[in-house]
Parts: sequence; C-alpha cells; structure tokens
Amino acid sequence: MARTIDRDDLERLAIGAGILGTGGGGNPYLGKLQARSLLEQGKTIEVVPACDVPDDALVTTVGSIGAPVVSNERPKQGEEFLVSLRALETHLGRTITHVTCAEIGGSNSMSPMIVAAQANLPVVDGDGMGRAFPELQMDTFMIYGIKPAPVVISDPRGHVAIFDKLDDPTTLERYARTVTIQMGGSAGAAGPAMSGRDMKRVLIRDTITLAIEIGDAVLKARAGHSDPVDAVLAISGGQRLFRGKIVDVDRRLVGGFARGVLEVEGIGPHDGERLTIDFQNENLIARTHAGEILAVVPDLICIVDAETAEPITTELLRYGLRIEVLGIPAPEALKSDAAMRYVGPEAFGYKGVEFIPLPGHFANQPDAFDLAAAMTF
Amino acid sequence: MARTIDRDDLERLAIGAGILGTGGGGNPYLGKLQARSLLEQGKTIEVVPACDVPDDALVTTVGSIGAPVVSNERPKQGEEFLVSLRALETHLGRTITHVTCAEIGGSNSMSPMIVAAQANLPVVDGDGMGRAFPELQMDTFMIYGIKPAPVVISDPRGHVAIFDKLDDPTTLERYARTVTIQMGGSAGAAGPAMSGRDMKRVLIRDTITLAIEIGDAVLKARAGHSDPVDAVLAISGGQRLFRGKIVDVDRRLVGGFARGVLEVEGIGPHDGERLTIDFQNENLIARTHAGEILAVVPDLICIVDAETAEPITTELLRYGLRIEVLGIPAPEALKSDAAMRYVGPEAFGYKGVEFIPLPGHFANQPDAFDLAAAMTF
Repeated sequence: MARTIDRDDLERLAIGAGILGTGGGGNPYLGKLQARSLLEQGKTIEVVPACDVPDDALVTTVGSIGAPVVSNERPKQGEEFLVSLRALETHLGRTITHVTCAEIGGSNSMSPMIVAAQANLPVVDGDGMGRAFPELQMDTFMIYGIKPAPVVISDPRGHVAIFDKLDDPTTLERYARTVTIQMGGSAGAAGPAMSGRDMKRVLIRDTITLAIEIGDAVLKARAGHSDPVDAVLAISGGQRLFRGKIVDVDRRLVGGFARGVLEVEGIGPHDGERLTIDFQNENLIARTHAGEILAVVPDLICIVDAETAEPITTELLRYGLRIEVLGIPAPEALKSDAAMRYVGPEAFGYKGVEFIPLPGHFANQPDAFDLAAAMTF
Repeated sequence: MARTIDRDDLERLAIGAGILGTGGGGNPYLGKLQARSLLEQGKTIEVVPACDVPDDALVTTVGSIGAPVVSNERPKQGEEFLVSLRALETHLGRTITHVTCAEIGGSNSMSPMIVAAQANLPVVDGDGMGRAFPELQMDTFMIYGIKPAPVVISDPRGHVAIFDKLDDPTTLERYARTVTIQMGGSAGAAGPAMSGRDMKRVLIRDTITLAIEIGDAVLKARAGHSDPVDAVLAISGGQRLFRGKIVDVDRRLVGGFARGVLEVEGIGPHDGERLTIDFQNENLIARTHAGEILAVVPDLICIVDAETAEPITTELLRYGLRIEVLGIPAPEALKSDAAMRYVGPEAFGYKGVEFIPLPGHFANQPDAFDLAAAMTF
C-alpha cells in the first residue's frame, strides 16, 4: 500500500536506517533535515510498494557516493540528486517515472526522499542492499545483472560526470570514485536506471517500511520504558552479539574510505571478554579475542547505544561509549553464491574467511526473495 | 585549398608535429602507423582550410589525454577517438560535421587524421595550441571562451565518461585527468564541440599544413645534404638557442605528467657553456647556468638531433645525445594577456618569471590572428 511520508516518519526512518547502516552509509541527520524542510515547503513524498510499479516504468536509484565523514562536514548544496537525475533523463532521452533507494542503511535512505519531493516522483519501497556497503557495485542491481551504466554524478556546483558503456560495475566504481574524490569527497549520484520489471526482479523489498518500523519501535520503547534494543531485534530478526565499552578506535581515511578497527571491552554478560570489529565505512567482521568470528559481512553488524538503541555510526565511535553490538541476518539476496563474489568476506579482503550466516532471517522474512527469478538475466 | 593526405604527408607531419611538440605531446609514431594503415585500407583523409567551413558546421577536437610515456608503451586499441566522437554526438543529439586538431605538437597531430579516416569526416587545418601543452585548458578554445563541456573520454575497452555542465576548464581538466589515470594513464577524448563560426574565431590556422611543410623541408634537406636545422628555422620563424650534448636528465612521473630537468653541455659555438631546460611533458624554460633565460613558455623550445633535425621528445632524452635547442616564437594567440593566464610562465608555477617573447613570428606570420575578434565571446 502506498504510504505518504510525514515528519514523524522521517524521524523513524533516520533511526531505522542508522541501525541498518551497520556503522556506515553516513548519518541520515542532514538528509532528514533537508527532507523535512521540503515537506514544510508543501512538497510530498509518497512511497509505493514494488508490486504496484508497472513493468514499463523507468526507475532509477539515487544516492550519495563518497566518504561519510566528508558528507557530515560538508553538507550538500541540496540539488545534487536532482541535477544528476535530470542529466540522466537527458542522456537517456527518457523520463524517469520512479526513484528508489540504492542503500537503505545510513544517509542514502534520505536521498530518494529528497529527490522525490523535489521532482514529485514516487519512491519504490526497497533498496539494493538492505543495509549499507562501501562500493557502488555491492548491490542487488549489480549482482543480478542490471546494466550498471549510465550513471551520473554531480558536485555542489552543478558539474556533471556521466559514465556510460560500462558493463563492469567494478570499473564504474573506480572511475566514479576517483571523480568523487576530485569533487571534494562526496557527490550526488543517479543511476543506473532500470525497467519496472527489472526493478521488481532484483529489489530488496519493503526496506523503507522496515527502517521506519524499526525506528517506530525504538521510539515507542523509549517512551514506554521497555528495552529499545529488544524492540529492534523483534522487528529486524537480529540477536545480541556483545555488550561492552569502546576502549580503542583506530581510524584513518584511505582512498575516500573510513577504515579502521574498533576494540570493545565486555560489560554485563560479557564482563572480562573483548571484541574486535573491523570496519571499512561499515562494520565488516566481529571477532572475540580468541579469534572466534561472531558475525561477518554480508550479515549486519550494528552498533547501538546500549540504553537507547540509538545507532552509532563509524565516525561517531569514541572511547567510553557503552554499546550493544547486534547481529542481523542479511537479506537472502545477499547470501546467494552470486552475491558472495561482491559482498562476501573475500570481497573485502578477508581471504579464507568463510561466511557462516547468522541464524534467522532478515526482517523475519524467510521467503522474501526469489533467487531463481533474480538470476534470469 | 583542401588537401588530401597521403602516406608521404603522414611522414612529413610526424616530423613537423614532433618538432612543434616542444618535447611533449607524445611521439606521433604509433598514430602515424595507424593512420597509414587506414589509408592502405582505402580510407581517405581530407584537410580543409578553416575559411571553407560553414558557420553552422559542428566541429569537434579529438585527441589523447594522458602521459606520453604511457601512450608509447600501451598502444591505443584504435577506436578510442571514434567511440568518444560517437558518444559526443549521441549526448549532443547532433551530428559532427568536421574534426580538428586539439594540439598539433606530438601524437595529437595524428588523432584527427585517424578519426577522419574512420568516420569519413574532413579535418579543419589548424589546432588550439600551435605546439603541445600538458593540460586540456591550455588551448585557444578555452582561452577565448569556447564552452569547455561536454567532453567525452573513452578507454580501450570502450568505456565512456562524459563531463558536462562545466564552465570551468580547470575543473574539467582535473576531473578528466583523474579518470584518465584510472583508465590506465591514457584515453581518447572528443570535445568540446563548437560551431564553424566559433572555430574560425579561435583556431590557430593552417598548423597541419605548417607541420607537413616543416617535415617536408627537413626531408628535402637531408636528401639534398643541406642543413635540416636551417630548413626548420626558415619555415617556422625560429632561431638557434644552444648546441650541446645531454649530460643529465632528471625525470619522474608525477600525477600523470613527465616532469624533469635536462642538463646540456655546450659544443661548437657554445663550448664551455651549460644549458638547463625544465620540462613538464613539454620544454618550459631554457636557462644558462648564469640564470639568463633564453626562452620561456609559451614560446616553443624544441630539441632536435643536431645533424638530422629529428625531433627528440622528452621520453627519448638520454645522456650523450647531441642536440640543437631551437626557439620558435609562439603563435600570437598564445601571447595575449588573456592567454598568459593559461599558458604563461606563472601558469606553470614559475612565479615572477616574465614572458619575454622571442623575436619574430610563428611560421613567419605576423598577422595570422585577430585578437579583437577572438575576444568577442
């Protein structure tokens, strides 16, 4: 069912998207403010389920590309997504009918909201990751054969770079990333565009609603004095991995990415234990000091404030924070053999690390993804 | 008058373009082989004077972007210029009617020949530099207000990057350069496109013919046992600056550019003297050991073999070569106040170095450029 996004939904979405961001994807805060301001100007944002989109629709993803730490310190000019969307339309010689979300985790949850309000286009409920990932090619659009180009990126001055005739998403990522760095470290992207039919084949569905529901549950738990972390787990299908205090953060900006290692000292049930989390924008692997892997990408490793379940993104990690580390099973679409090449541990440089899935299902939806259909490209 | 390029013209062009390359612009050798091969396949190359091009023609420059040392070691796939030209046409929604030369110095002299043969388009006689320069914005198109975008670059796999909505050629250069490096260090570029009317306003005219005539004079002098260096000077309007032996070359590849310093020990009339030449792809400044500047960019500092006048490009400089250093006055279009910002000594980082023009005129043509007309943008 179509849903109209209001100011409260944006608050909920920011919390849920922050948690699904697994530490990365950037903070939705600035995007939320911009989307809210657009609503206050009388613009509307409508989210529609994938099943309601016609096969011959032309859907594009929009999102930011760049290092979250840059996006936080240099706010967008505001029309980067719209400039890229319009340049994509001009380049294709066709009109975009719907936008959808490239990445529900983090700030990119807000990108389609912003451009939907600006261009008066409906947002398809879903995304290509069900979480956040650091690179363009790490989404179900690329994994399941959507043509990766053309993609348009634009900078705050309205400058446009279009990448086309690329069949190889890794090359696209490399070319777009290097221009993004020259654009100041963050750019607004639109594309690839796909038919409604293809979108329905590969989209991880209903993740915008999921993020809003997670945020809603957290806010209600906080207000009703129940445990917000339990509320997250009930809706997301996740489990508690570790409770502790941050004792060290080793962080550096490498090639436009925030890479590093986090050390957590156990408290409560994990008193005396230690946990290490590697991240590259997102949290990738959680290990005990004995070397046991508790969770590994593509499963979601989410760090939240132990009391409020407020998501803690990579750039906000600091000594002394008391956190709860949650493990949420990845969407089925990220766990196929085809997906492992793009988003499994080896894709992030962890040679020989096997993906052992967390028990349970993403958002408690065991049958939400039709792999056989997705592979028909 | 229109002229049809034959195999001998390509030989002449390679020599003349090599000399006008002032050490940079890459070696025309590989491009010459490709152009020759196209002629052997029955393709034709016609060069037409600028005055014969209609005002409503759509003219584009084509050329390589990248470090010459890379172009020499990794030959082009062969269709990079054509792929970029076609992508530019698609992006503009218009058909290109003529190509012209971005840079007559070095390998880019051959780029329009190649694409002209492939696409069966006439080449307008002239270019935007009258020599070679290391960066995109250093041409009369940019100096005199041709809109710098859209520009298309493509790699050997047919991947395309289009840069648009850029009014600032320096930003365009930065974005295109960084993708070029990711493309392996060399790419084929097409654009900006301009009307025939604008082309006639800003083109440095007849430089393809000039390069062919320089090459012709050198070959005739060699065959007739007269001095090939004198032959170059008679046609180019240049003078001898220094005769000597290369005793040191300090060269490094920085950000896609070949930068360095050359030391020359005098022989013959310069016995006991020393000359230093700074280069960044091209030779930029020639100084005696006492610090006296003999010639400085944008004037052309050309290094040729002392006996044969064979051009010696930066990447071929080595200990022991006996060379003649020539100074050729830059085209008038490069010596205006408007041009100095882009191609004067300060544009290359020589703060406080004044441009003192060499006496005489480029190609002995004192009135070849209408500055007042060029500035009407």
